[in-house]
Amino acid sequence: MNALAGGGAATDVLDFLPCRTPSSWFDEARDNLPLLLVDHANCEKKAASTALGMLYRYVDRPELLYRLSRLAREELRHFEQVHALMQRLGIEYRQISSSRYAATLMGRVRRDEPGRLIDTLLVGAVVEARSCERFAGLVDVVPEPVATLYRGLLASEARHFRHYLGLAHRCAGGDTSDRLQAFLELDAELVTSTDAEFRFHSGPPG
Amino acid sequence: MNALAGGGAATDVLDFLPCRTPSSWFDEARDNLPLLLVDHANCEKKAASTALGMLYRYVDRPELLYRLSRLAREELRHFEQVHALMQRLGIEYRQISSSRYAATLMGRVRRDEPGRLIDTLLVGAVVEARSCERFAGLVDVVPEPVATLYRGLLASEARHFRHYLGLAHRCAGGDTSDRLQAFLELDAELVTSTDAEFRFHSGPPG
Repeated sequence: MNALAGGGAATDVLDFLPCRTPSSWFDEARDNLPLLLVDHANCEKKAASTALGMLYRYVDRPELLYRLSRLAREELRHFEQVHALMQRLGIEYRQISSSRYAATLMGRVRRDEPGRLIDTLLVGAVVEARSCERFAGLVDVVPEPVATLYRGLLASEARHFRHYLGLAHRCAGGDTSDRLQAFLELDAELVTSTDAEFRFHSGPPG
Repeated sequence: MNALAGGGAATDVLDFLPCRTPSSWFDEARDNLPLLLVDHANCEKKAASTALGMLYRYVDRPELLYRLSRLAREELRHFEQVHALMQRLGIEYRQISSSRYAATLMGRVRRDEPGRLIDTLLVGAVVEARSCERFAGLVDVVPEPVATLYRGLLASEARHFRHYLGLAHRCAGGDTSDRLQAFLELDAELVTSTDAEFRFHSGPPG
């Protein structure tokens, strides 16, 4: 975790997360670089889609619209960067299933408003923080030029984490710690329990 | 149509379209500025969503992914510009139904591939061209600072039109004139036949 722990700008991310990614996941990532990049590209598209979906639902919240539209643009820019790198490395972009991670977190989002909004923003914060932590660890195990890209994405993910968390607090207009705790516990469970499929946000191999 | 006809960069757009927007639509737009801007903001989001949807379906087409991701980012940037202007003008952003225009065009897209891809790109070209033509006409009837924004968006829409048309031709690998003609005829019908609702792409008032 040198890129984060070594005096980087994102130490708040490590304090926020309930646990570190097991080292066996990083070993698996090192051995599955094409799959990692394909799923990473998909994650960037999914992050843009989630933000865009909120632009449709919450038209009466100007700050939210402003932040999420910019965030969606940045995720798309990252998608383009990952995709360009895949092409440079000759990695085929094929359709793959998405991991259990984000789907499980989103499955716990409340259905009523403003619960749905607050929970979606909290899940956004957790996913961005976990992504940031994984990029930081990946920098040490993936080859160049992937490591350079991931080093560059670290700061963005940390910034997105802070934006999501800040928006959640302001939209809630009060304490969100109970809901946040529930999502963090779920994150820890998903990150530490064995997973049948390797993906960017998967658990360690069985 | 001064902004287009007056030696602008988008005369190819006027040659492409089957007809001009009736003047009665521009009269209605002048009298319904808040509704115009709200629907315009929605159109920018929808344009980004359509492009993003294609990023999911066509992962094996690198040029398409590159172009459409950049296009989606630009549509989101336009959304932010319209939204900022609405806030500046004190226009409330409320939920409204979308117009019949894009839905009717998309309803004629073939279900099979590569027909679905080619048709979606052709519809993209038609919608961008029609938007460009409307912006050009609106420049003369809307007040500042809306006119300035719309003057700025003209060139982008014309560029998007060309990108969509070029992608359609390259993805088809052959002649697309029959399908294009069908969509242009539908556009003409939607643009000249009376419409119950005023929207950015609506027909003239009844």
